[in-house]
Amino acid sequence: MTRTLSRPERIAWARLARTPRIGPLTFHRLIGKYRTASAALEALPRISQLEPPAASKIEAEIDGVEALGARLLASSEPDYPSLLGQLDAPPPLLAVRGDVALLTKPAIAIVGSREASGAAQMFAERLAADLGAAGFVVVSGLARGLDAAAHRGALETGTVAVLAGGLDHPYPPQNLKLHDAICERGAVVSEAPFGSIARARDFPRRNSIISGLSRAVVIIEAALRSGSLITARAAADQGRDVMAVPGSPLDPRARGSNALIKQGATLIESAADVIEALGDAAPPLRPHSIGPLFADSDAEPTPPGLPKKIAALLSPTPIHVNDLARLVEAPMGAVAAALTELELSGRAASLPGGYAASSGAAFPLGD
Amino acid sequence: MTRTLSRPERIAWARLARTPRIGPLTFHRLIGKYRTASAALEALPRISQLEPPAASKIEAEIDGVEALGARLLASSEPDYPSLLGQLDAPPPLLAVRGDVALLTKPAIAIVGSREASGAAQMFAERLAADLGAAGFVVVSGLARGLDAAAHRGALETGTVAVLAGGLDHPYPPQNLKLHDAICERGAVVSEAPFGSIARARDFPRRNSIISGLSRAVVIIEAALRSGSLITARAAADQGRDVMAVPGSPLDPRARGSNALIKQGATLIESAADVIEALGDAAPPLRPHSIGPLFADSDAEPTPPGLPKKIAALLSPTPIHVNDLARLVEAPMGAVAAALTELELSGRAASLPGGYAASSGAAFPLGD
Repeated sequence: MTRTLSRPERIAWARLARTPRIGPLTFHRLIGKYRTASAALEALPRISQLEPPAASKIEAEIDGVEALGARLLASSEPDYPSLLGQLDAPPPLLAVRGDVALLTKPAIAIVGSREASGAAQMFAERLAADLGAAGFVVVSGLARGLDAAAHRGALETGTVAVLAGGLDHPYPPQNLKLHDAICERGAVVSEAPFGSIARARDFPRRNSIISGLSRAVVIIEAALRSGSLITARAAADQGRDVMAVPGSPLDPRARGSNALIKQGATLIESAADVIEALGDAAPPLRPHSIGPLFADSDAEPTPPGLPKKIAALLSPTPIHVNDLARLVEAPMGAVAAALTELELSGRAASLPGGYAASSGAAFPLGD
Repeated sequence: MTRTLSRPERIAWARLARTPRIGPLTFHRLIGKYRTASAALEALPRISQLEPPAASKIEAEIDGVEALGARLLASSEPDYPSLLGQLDAPPPLLAVRGDVALLTKPAIAIVGSREASGAAQMFAERLAADLGAAGFVVVSGLARGLDAAAHRGALETGTVAVLAGGLDHPYPPQNLKLHDAICERGAVVSEAPFGSIARARDFPRRNSIISGLSRAVVIIEAALRSGSLITARAAADQGRDVMAVPGSPLDPRARGSNALIKQGATLIESAADVIEALGDAAPPLRPHSIGPLFADSDAEPTPPGLPKKIAALLSPTPIHVNDLARLVEAPMGAVAAALTELELSGRAASLPGGYAASSGAAFPLGD
């Protein structure tokens, strides 16, 4: 069951979500355990040394967001994007500017290189327009090059840009005009706090929102070891279809896309290919709830010794919680509980897409 | 068991194989039934109105082949290429000029468009050289453009050219110098009678020998509805790995290759990719024998009414015998027996790769 929060509830929810060291995984564990954000905030001093931000700071954030004509959506609210809300640990808060209703429509992400060739940009623009005409919203990252072309192609039919920084800090400067047009006709979303400027470490998080919002991700002209491949990995982890546009082996800009196809991504040459590949396999649009990982999390005690065992396995290189659970041979719920304990005590960091790392780590790659 | 034929045996074998209207399917049925070519020739007037060529004509063919320093191999002989010999209906006769021993080595086919881009030709040459260095013989069709590039790349390490016409009619004229170099250092093979000039209908047959000789077929820059795609289909029918080099959707020359990848062909960017894809799935090199379709064919009577049923299903468009067997709901052996009967009475034509059509039909496409 989802419902719209009152202002005090929203403030409490945002204070918990904005508490340093509380990632999405721990956030949802705490909500699962204490049922409300207020109750979790109340318990926080007893179970950790973490300090939530002052209510006044959050009120200022909400006021700033609303002054832009935007909204700060909690993941428990009905307007929160349905597919994103079905993730195991959805972003607790999402700032949305523009047409919120776009977030309920079926969406396809189109991402690719900032250094994409002119031909690839033309192709992306055409693909986006064709998918738009077929009723799909096109999601991308507002980056230079390919992302911008995808947004442009779907400007008339509906496009969603995901920012790595706060809503008040659209990036990059080259795309400010495009950004403003998307605010007018589409939607711009961000998980980052209002006022924050994107750092390199924020882009993987942004990428996993791009894929989280979408039924499928189409990758065009991605290099090896690029942000686009991180989006593809996030998409696969989230159960989304990964599709890629091929290129000649002689074109280094196609290496990443070709590598994805080798690994099983669907080869795509047109919007018709995308739609055919979606088939009936598209995730159904159902009302979201708190992810399955956390639904019963209050019932799951942390087995003694498990947090220490897990802490020993963590390094700055992110590892997926599924892999952790396999390594320690413990059920997922117990691993999540142990990770929460580690995160609350500052010994672990949970990362987007179900990854965890030793404290302070982030995905090593920028965008 | 395979053994080298005596000259009289070879002459009888070739007379039966060169009898008009006797395709590979019927040839092997007759050998299966009568055990030797001489016995089958003796029976022929009793079971059909077909007329084998005179022994003197065949002797002239063998003399012509041998004058070139080449050999006319029967599919029952030990030097006959092993993989080709494992097909259901291998070409009964194969003329081979150059290094016969090359035909026993593991081979990869590389084929593609006669109008291939310069970049694709460079790529094919490099791929062929790299596969050659890794111990593979490179098989292709001596056509302009991509085929020629593949042969050039593997000239030092070993390459086999398959002709659609007789050994004495290499084609096309642009590649005569390349042809001569392959005769010197590699091998040139043909199923066509000595003296025959390639017609459009001979190319699909040539293509199925290219794939039949090879463990895998790599397709580079094939257009939709091209001879290369017929080779790919023959390869798949023969259980060979089909691999394709991708290209941009904006490049019409890549349409066929991309379409193959969509249909399940392995995306290939390098020789390492080819070798990795082969894995342990490469067909083992074992001594060949008469194909499984025909091993017990003399034991299989033709069910009454079946030839008529099958004749009604045949049209100028080739249909695979597997599909025929499904349509008439009869065992493969019975279908093969019925087809033989139809072919002997001039009402059907068996085509390479296990296809059959109404009499006189051929694959509709040139190369």
